[in-house]
Amino acid sequence: MEAFNYYNPTRLINGKDKQQEIGKILKEDGIEHVLLVFGKSSIKRSGLYDELVSILTDKGIRFTDHGGVKSNPVLSHTREGIQKVKENNVQAVLAVGGGSVVDESKAIAAGALWDGDVWDLFKGQKTNKALPLYTILTLSATGSEMNSGAVVTNEETLEKFSFSSPATFPKVSIVNAAFTFGLPMDYMAYSAVDAITHTLEVYFTAQEMPLLKRRFIENIVLTVMETTNKIIKDPKDYDSRAEFALASTWALNGLTTIGVGKYSFPNHMIEHSLSAIFDVPHGAGLAVVLPAWMKWYKEKNTKAFERFAKEVFGLDTADQGIVALEDWFLSIGAPTKLDALNVGVIDNKEVAENAFLTSKKWGMSDVYSIETISDILDIAR
Amino acid sequence: MEAFNYYNPTRLINGKDKQQEIGKILKEDGIEHVLLVFGKSSIKRSGLYDELVSILTDKGIRFTDHGGVKSNPVLSHTREGIQKVKENNVQAVLAVGGGSVVDESKAIAAGALWDGDVWDLFKGQKTNKALPLYTILTLSATGSEMNSGAVVTNEETLEKFSFSSPATFPKVSIVNAAFTFGLPMDYMAYSAVDAITHTLEVYFTAQEMPLLKRRFIENIVLTVMETTNKIIKDPKDYDSRAEFALASTWALNGLTTIGVGKYSFPNHMIEHSLSAIFDVPHGAGLAVVLPAWMKWYKEKNTKAFERFAKEVFGLDTADQGIVALEDWFLSIGAPTKLDALNVGVIDNKEVAENAFLTSKKWGMSDVYSIETISDILDIAR
Repeated sequence: MEAFNYYNPTRLINGKDKQQEIGKILKEDGIEHVLLVFGKSSIKRSGLYDELVSILTDKGIRFTDHGGVKSNPVLSHTREGIQKVKENNVQAVLAVGGGSVVDESKAIAAGALWDGDVWDLFKGQKTNKALPLYTILTLSATGSEMNSGAVVTNEETLEKFSFSSPATFPKVSIVNAAFTFGLPMDYMAYSAVDAITHTLEVYFTAQEMPLLKRRFIENIVLTVMETTNKIIKDPKDYDSRAEFALASTWALNGLTTIGVGKYSFPNHMIEHSLSAIFDVPHGAGLAVVLPAWMKWYKEKNTKAFERFAKEVFGLDTADQGIVALEDWFLSIGAPTKLDALNVGVIDNKEVAENAFLTSKKWGMSDVYSIETISDILDIAR
Repeated sequence: MEAFNYYNPTRLINGKDKQQEIGKILKEDGIEHVLLVFGKSSIKRSGLYDELVSILTDKGIRFTDHGGVKSNPVLSHTREGIQKVKENNVQAVLAVGGGSVVDESKAIAAGALWDGDVWDLFKGQKTNKALPLYTILTLSATGSEMNSGAVVTNEETLEKFSFSSPATFPKVSIVNAAFTFGLPMDYMAYSAVDAITHTLEVYFTAQEMPLLKRRFIENIVLTVMETTNKIIKDPKDYDSRAEFALASTWALNGLTTIGVGKYSFPNHMIEHSLSAIFDVPHGAGLAVVLPAWMKWYKEKNTKAFERFAKEVFGLDTADQGIVALEDWFLSIGAPTKLDALNVGVIDNKEVAENAFLTSKKWGMSDVYSIETISDILDIAR
């Protein structure tokens, strides 16, 4: 087993109506003014916005609105948020939404205490300072509610980059799975694909992995699949929603990679370029890239692919396991071919060059050549 | 799924020679004087004591020795530790040892900032203050390195009580599994039984449990069994030692009980009375109590017992699963009958009365009558 250093101080609160606790939590932490970060109008339509305004007002906590976060959050809007923090003497960030809102909020929280431009952090500069971040999750998928990473797109350069800091773990994350009752089923499918991909990238790229970890990941994948199937049948199945939420948090809060040898995230790297250029939903892009990458990669870790087929699908060969996963993606309504993304002509070279440059800039351990990425995209046609 | 509030801020560092980092860690935290808590002479024989003295001295960190922690730590020695803290202006506690040393250290850390007697905390009074606690683990079993609980025995009253506080999570726990190379094989077996029992008490007593959790616990049990078997064959198998250590930490750091319905720890409750009265090693007592309790309890959660038999041992019935676990305990050298504890005559009534009173005082959700506990002990004869 590899040496590790695991640290995750996020308090994770999960339950019906738990958003009601946010006022008390902020008050106890001495917070008097928050930046309220959210996406489009869904939290206004659902009544959650009004509920939070009432909770904050009751506790005498002021707030500055920062709505309009995009589903692939962008740098210009992040900078606007930082500006609002500085102008309004804001002490904390309250993110209300899914992974995109949480990611932009992390960038705002760190950027607000960073002397230069926030994009410096995405280009590799390090910070240990951030405003305290609180999140109320309305969509489970990215795991961002319990890790320190954030991905933001620079719209000018079409770079979708990430950063993390020990200071950007949310202090408290509140998950009320009932908020996801109204989620359109295609987005439910994308969420499932995202959570599964977070674990499978590690599972397949790490050559050395204790059985404890292999089984842990298989458990998460099985749980995501089982609960997704139940949610599609009965969208108001709260227990399945809550279990899905927990599995997707576990998929990327550090637990899957403890003690694991070298691993990488090539599918995320390729998908980030797809969505930076074509603005496709992250999970939809992953559903296309992952099966193609698996077909291309399978000989590099045959044992893991065979084990995956057997433990997750009860099948015998690596190929059967890949096809079963692809079929399952299709069965829940996720696209598995580039054409099915419906974003017009996708040029291999444009995506591959972007992904190649991005992975080099990220300092990824396993940088794929432009030709390799192009080959993988071909398999997805 | 039940609502939950999960919080675990302990930094867990695992790897060969990682104890060398403790000086840097304490220095960065501004600690100038630690109470160095340890057990009998084993860390002096192994050279670890001298190594730590050298590391602390190099960093200009003073230390006050507090050796002699018993394997069931006692109140009088805990009070002595608190006295030393107060007399020497100690700022932090550094626990070097196994679960007993860590448990006593938690009590010292909290007791040092508590106005009354530390036993108040074990009798139910609450505190949110403790000195920062750092641990270097030399024996994996109890999970104490990554939770906030501590068990101490009051030798005068023969009460083995526990307490916990949000302030008694270790700040940093360092695990170097190579320290366990010299552990006698009977104690290796007791450690395995302890870790397994931590998970199985939850697995069987919780009537409602998401599949995510059932599989998570089965994974831990399988890993503990597989790695123990390997360690018995090759005591210097570092990877298996390290994986065993991680599995035993996961067994009691809160991850197994997230989102799980009501559960209880009847086996620990009975065993604590056994070891409070007869001073048997905790894991040895559990190896005797658990199979007996399983035979007594199995009809109360048949589905979980049948699932356990199938998933862990590939067997068909609840009874077969219980026998297989008992046989495995025997195969690794753990006792499974009261007589095999070799502590003379064990009076059912004395143990049962102690356990009954203790579980009432702990406010356990599921208090067993004296007759019931006596019946369970009879099955263990």
